[in-house]
Formats: sequence, structure tokens, C-alpha cells
Amino acid sequence: MVVDHRSSVPPSPHSAMRAGYVHGYHPREAERLHDQANTLVDLLHADTAYPGGAAVLEAGCGVGAQTVTLARRSPGARFTSIDVSSASLDQARQRVSEAALTNVELRQADIFALPFPAESFDHVFVCFVLEHLPRPAEALTALMTVLRPGGTLTVIEGDHGSAYFHPDDADARAVIDCLVTLQREDGGDATIGRRVYPLLIDAGLEAVRVSPRMVYVDGSRPALAEGFTRRTFAAMMEAPRERAIAAGLVSPAVFDAGVRALYRAAEPDGVFCYTFFKGVGQKRRGDA
Amino acid sequence: MVVDHRSSVPPSPHSAMRAGYVHGYHPREAERLHDQANTLVDLLHADTAYPGGAAVLEAGCGVGAQTVTLARRSPGARFTSIDVSSASLDQARQRVSEAALTNVELRQADIFALPFPAESFDHVFVCFVLEHLPRPAEALTALMTVLRPGGTLTVIEGDHGSAYFHPDDADARAVIDCLVTLQREDGGDATIGRRVYPLLIDAGLEAVRVSPRMVYVDGSRPALAEGFTRRTFAAMMEAPRERAIAAGLVSPAVFDAGVRALYRAAEPDGVFCYTFFKGVGQKRRGDA
Repeated sequence: MVVDHRSSVPPSPHSAMRAGYVHGYHPREAERLHDQANTLVDLLHADTAYPGGAAVLEAGCGVGAQTVTLARRSPGARFTSIDVSSASLDQARQRVSEAALTNVELRQADIFALPFPAESFDHVFVCFVLEHLPRPAEALTALMTVLRPGGTLTVIEGDHGSAYFHPDDADARAVIDCLVTLQREDGGDATIGRRVYPLLIDAGLEAVRVSPRMVYVDGSRPALAEGFTRRTFAAMMEAPRERAIAAGLVSPAVFDAGVRALYRAAEPDGVFCYTFFKGVGQKRRGDA
Repeated sequence: MVVDHRSSVPPSPHSAMRAGYVHGYHPREAERLHDQANTLVDLLHADTAYPGGAAVLEAGCGVGAQTVTLARRSPGARFTSIDVSSASLDQARQRVSEAALTNVELRQADIFALPFPAESFDHVFVCFVLEHLPRPAEALTALMTVLRPGGTLTVIEGDHGSAYFHPDDADARAVIDCLVTLQREDGGDATIGRRVYPLLIDAGLEAVRVSPRMVYVDGSRPALAEGFTRRTFAAMMEAPRERAIAAGLVSPAVFDAGVRALYRAAEPDGVFCYTFFKGVGQKRRGDA
């Protein structure tokens, strides 16, 4: 995934133990997430709006990159935004405060130990979270317990295997593979986007609809080349350089050449493609 | 690319000499093209309509898979559909006749030796042709000479590098790589879709807009799984089996396992993604 995470990674033996969260927790990373969220807001969120009075759980809000967007677009809904990281919640709290939002409650909580009564939310929203979880299906099962029958569950995830570009470059593909491998070592799945539909079906949701949201960047879209290809995707790929090299996944020369090729694809005669997947399903009415 | 080709491959040393057209010329191949064209018609063609009286050149019409759609959607326009293969034109002629279309003239001609006066067409349409040409940029230059200033040039191409699926499978990726390699040996580029924008810009077109057309297939779309994943994509990939094995690109075991994995992705819990690219540009007014 690509926009916001530092969140909801349960303290499993596989995750958060080694180098921890694959994207790191540096200020530059926070800035990257913010830039990218601005660029992608419409693509990902334009069709999400909750009615007045609805109680919505945002699970894995991280630094609040999506929280502000969500709460602004549904001013009558009440959001409970949780994350496992108190440091991330501090940043989210500041963002929510700066946005003068009064319909968001931030709370530290783990998806696998939710401190809420059964069926207490009208809707659940999960964005760039499942990709980091060793057991995404179990996470959805846990979230289903706090969702009322008839309520919706929305999932948004990226898929690094959906990235391709012109000029094509074997080193750049190797760099992307590094991040996929590192995220797998952390217990996650950087190519989970394509699995959103079967995950929602397996969780027992009905009327599941998944729609791909493709980011297509060519020379006619310089702002997207800057905001997405360079500042979001290439920056994310180059962040774990030292870890990837230390792990023996790639040589410094190949890694650096691959990163250069990703930035190269953001030039006016280059092209970059990446796809997010957004899925929405409804909890069966009449379930206990 | 994926929908119609057997066309306009110039008699170069690289193409049409060895096993010839990578997809072959068998009846089953013709059936595949027809199935696929039906499935994809709206995705690819819904936004193409030419005004009454317009003279349109369809370059590389092949067996006429797109011709019938084009001519039906623009009943007042006059189409000249050319192909280098007389056998393909025979099939195209039959299709046009069965569709009772009176606004299509079929003619054997080579894109690199067009038998038309300069600037004699109001619009030019090219679909699944450039991917097979050793010199796609020169083909566009040749087509530009017969386009009037202010007229549009439309290009549609697939990109095999845009294919990914769930469950992911290394053998399936190897099979796709085989077809990309074989098409390259024939002088083509099976990943040309991502290059449509820079190709149109380099050809001197203005106001170029490229839009990706993603085919997303999950368990909620069984007709698309049948029409596209199975009958179009997987069938296309498995067609050059003997040639790929004879060329030493892959073992029979890997090839067969990869093809099975592609069909596997068409099951209800599988997912398949593929993207076509459609580009439209306008010839500068005031050019000689």
C-alpha cells in the first residue's frame, strides 16, 4: 500500500520486531504520506460519504492522513479512529485539531483486541492497514464483530505488483521486489490489493464490489508525476535502502540504479502506473 | 495487445518470417479474437464516434474485429479499412457483409506504403497494430501524412506487463514473459501500451490524452472471467506453447503449470487484471 500505515500492526513475532514498520517513522516519511494523501484524495475517497448520525470506526488511522478527509466529507457522522501506535495518534490528534474537526475521537487500540461492544458501529473503514498484517482475514473477522448487521465495511489497499513504467528497467523492478520481500518479512503483503475481493467474501460480507483505482501518470500530468511518482512511490521505494542492502537482497549499485530509473519514469517522456483497490461490502442482516 | 492483429506486420527480416504472427492464424485464434472483441467493445470503443461525412482510415483492420464496431457506432462516417494480409481481409469482408454495413471499404495496403493522397483522411484509427511493428514511431509518421490538419489519430494498445492476478504464480509470469520475448523476436513490443503517450507526442500530435482501460475480473464478474481471463488472455498465452518450448524459453512443465495458473485466476476466488491504453491526439493545424 502507499498512503498511510504506521498503524495497527499487531505485536506479532513477525512484525514490528526487526526493523519494524517497513516505511520507517522519520519526519520525511510523515511528509511523504501527507503529500501523497493530498494527491490521491479524490481518486480514493470521492465516493465515500457516511450519513449524519452514523457511527464509523476507522481502524488503523495512523498519522491521520485519511482521517481528516473522511471526517470532512461526512461532517454529520461520528468517527472513532484507532491505532496501535501512540506516537502516530499524537500526530493524528494534531492534524484533527488543525482541521478544527469535532466529529473525530482518537483512541489507542488494537484491531485484534477491540475495546468496543459487539455491533456498535454502523460502518467500518480500513485503509492501507491489511497490507501490514500477518493475518488480514482474522483482522476482518474481528472488525466484523463490531459492525452492525446491514452496515458496510470499506477496505482500500495498494498493490506494488501493479506498478509498471516507461522506460521499463530491471533494476527498478528489483527495488520494488525488495520492498515486497521486506514487507513479507514483517508479516505483511505489499501486493494485497488484488486480494481485496476474496478477502471481503471470505469475511462473510455481501454485495461486495471492488473497484480498481489506477494512478496513470504521463507527461501531461506533471503535478501527479511530482506528487505520486516522485514523492510517493519512488520515495517509498528508496526509503529501506540500507535494510535491503544489509539483508543481501540487492547490491548498492543495483538499488541506486533502480531508484534512479523510478525517478526517470517521472520525466515528461516517461509513464508510471499504479493501482489501488477499493472494496465495499455489507454485513448480512439477521446475523447474531 | 490482445484483441486483433494479424495485420500490418510489414515484411521485415524480423517479422512474419519465422513462426510468423505470434498468435497464429488458426480458426480457434479467429474465434478467440471474436469473443474477446465482444467482451471489450464498450471498454475500448464507447467514446469513439466520428461525425457524418468524415473519412476515417482504419489502419491494420485484421479480420475486422474492430471494424464492425467502429462502423456501427459512426454510421454516417466512411471507413477505409486496410490490412497487409489478404487472408485477414477476406474474413473482414465477410464480417462487414454479415453486419450489412455499407460505410466500409476494405483494401489491401501496407502502412509503410499507403496508397492515399496526403491529408486525405479526417481521422485515423489504429488498434492492436503498433505492438507488432518493428518501427511503431515510423508507422505513426506515415499515418500522419494522410491525416488532414486538425484531424485526430486514435491508438489503442494492450500491455502484457500490466497483467497480474491472484493467486500470483511465478510459472504464469514466466509464460507471459515467453509471449513478450517471442513478440520481441518478431520485431514487436507486447508492452507497448505504456508507451502510447510518448509515441503520440513524438509523432507531433497535439492535445494528446491517454486513458488506461483496465479490465478487472473478480468473482462477481463471471462472464468477464470467461470472456477475458480464460478465452482471451489465457488462450492467447498458451497458443505459442510449442514455439516457446522449441526456443528454449521455458520447460514444458513450467509452461503447462503457468497456463493452469492463469486459468486458475479465473475461478470465483481468483482475480485478474489487465490494462489497455487508448490515446487520442490532434494533428497541428497549419502543417503542410
